[in-house]
Amino acid sequence: MSNSADPSMIGESTRGEDDIIKRIAAILGRSPIPRGERHIGDDAAILAPFVGQALISTDVAVLGVHLDGSLFPLEDLGFKAVASAVSDLAAMGGRPRGAVIAVSSPPGTDLEELHRGIADAAVITSCPIVGGDLTRGNDVSIAVTVFGECPGGDAVLRSGARAGEKILVSGPLGRSSAGLRRRRAGAPLQDELVVAHRRPWPRIAEGIAARGAGVSAMMDLSDGLGLDLHRLADASNVGFVLDRVPVAEGATESEATSGGEDYELLIVTPNVERLRMVFADRGLRQPISIGRIVDNVEERTLRGERFARDGWQHQL
Amino acid sequence: MSNSADPSMIGESTRGEDDIIKRIAAILGRSPIPRGERHIGDDAAILAPFVGQALISTDVAVLGVHLDGSLFPLEDLGFKAVASAVSDLAAMGGRPRGAVIAVSSPPGTDLEELHRGIADAAVITSCPIVGGDLTRGNDVSIAVTVFGECPGGDAVLRSGARAGEKILVSGPLGRSSAGLRRRRAGAPLQDELVVAHRRPWPRIAEGIAARGAGVSAMMDLSDGLGLDLHRLADASNVGFVLDRVPVAEGATESEATSGGEDYELLIVTPNVERLRMVFADRGLRQPISIGRIVDNVEERTLRGERFARDGWQHQL
Repeated sequence: MSNSADPSMIGESTRGEDDIIKRIAAILGRSPIPRGERHIGDDAAILAPFVGQALISTDVAVLGVHLDGSLFPLEDLGFKAVASAVSDLAAMGGRPRGAVIAVSSPPGTDLEELHRGIADAAVITSCPIVGGDLTRGNDVSIAVTVFGECPGGDAVLRSGARAGEKILVSGPLGRSSAGLRRRRAGAPLQDELVVAHRRPWPRIAEGIAARGAGVSAMMDLSDGLGLDLHRLADASNVGFVLDRVPVAEGATESEATSGGEDYELLIVTPNVERLRMVFADRGLRQPISIGRIVDNVEERTLRGERFARDGWQHQL
Repeated sequence: MSNSADPSMIGESTRGEDDIIKRIAAILGRSPIPRGERHIGDDAAILAPFVGQALISTDVAVLGVHLDGSLFPLEDLGFKAVASAVSDLAAMGGRPRGAVIAVSSPPGTDLEELHRGIADAAVITSCPIVGGDLTRGNDVSIAVTVFGECPGGDAVLRSGARAGEKILVSGPLGRSSAGLRRRRAGAPLQDELVVAHRRPWPRIAEGIAARGAGVSAMMDLSDGLGLDLHRLADASNVGFVLDRVPVAEGATESEATSGGEDYELLIVTPNVERLRMVFADRGLRQPISIGRIVDNVEERTLRGERFARDGWQHQL
């Protein structure tokens, strides 16, 4: 869109949108462009045909809301926004094919730093940035939309969990929240838990493996087990009985339960042995059993006590 | 992403994210969901397989930058953001399959009004909103990502124009800028030119028809002919000789040349007769010839005078 509320026009000698787009394209150009595709530079990006169902998800991150700029460098905002969006595809067992980013920012924002974080996440998730849009705004805000494909079968939904099936998570929880707490107390950016907060790792390989192993429901833990497990149970119209919450080293049980942004996968399956075998075959860390699904939608317990619906929700 | 910089947690009794998402989903639910697809409600939306190349584009609109909230209702921001993004697919001859929206806004924003505008644009463009994300921010900002398909042939690029080919536009120019000027001078929201500014109409049918007619290059006029034609010429490494700029009734020549947001298509073709015939067959308004492409990349003229590179660019 052009800038209709501000009547100032910029002549060709001014350093304008086209120029900064070129510099950003160079930063993002670290991901190779597959044959037959065209990414940044035209009205829309062109991707080669998708295989199977197409998956699409979008996530927005705002400096000061999703990242405290006094504690973390701007490139972390870009990294987290991309990683968070890619994690939504992992949650359905999808394979990322690309992402587009829409950035708004006030004059003077270091857009190159922001896009270095975006490029880092694009490389580690094999999800090239194929297009974008830049505009002026008071916030530094980045919206990431990722799209992927689902070869050889359907995407895994939240709504497929059935009574008697087992509940697992792809790793111990609370690392991201613990890292944020440690950073606030002065820990360096390189601290292992702080890195877990700054540089979350979407569980793409785990999601694809779980889909291949025939799991019945899956989602990513972006808002904490205490909220996301209830969402999965609501979507499936079931209850659950949890034996344990696996607390990551250095995290508290409260951080593991209600802290967000771990991006581990929450998996429900009728066949735990098959899931463990597929993960082992692919060299993936073994998922952790935490409980089972029950018929009674009201029954939602941890070690026999009611498991409260408690996690991160934004106030709108 | 969860809200990590703000440590406040919201219990289950609070009207939170899940609740507003339900009300917004009801507003967006006017578009039918095709068989085999799942839209809002899971980690990612699921679309049935795409036919041919996949096209993706993203656009961000910020209240106060892209729309003056003292002159226009908030729903216009939603409408324009979707229409502008869909227009990028039209520019390549694509057919929209869906869109996702990422909205950030301060507390108290009328999100339902914003989404009514989004829903209106989704209905008129046959582009269902299949997912989204909501977050808190200081700006009211909306990022729209649209994706579409290209059955039966390749998407039309900006870079395919060759010397000797004819340049056309899909309609007269300057209506949007003229409407903004009129609104600033007190014209009502229902004024025809003001409506052209508030409710731009992406030229989807025209884009598909042009692609079918074998045009060599195409783009949408979002930033004005005075900027966008130079971009097309740069991408194709050619020059151009313009005979005229078609000025819409009620607009000035300057608005037609340098005003943005008309979203008419700029078309280059070796075969004007075929283009005219296909448009006539489909009941589309006849495109307007404005000039021709030349080899010399430095030759860029209107009625024999140098055609300045002049249009809307954002200051970043």
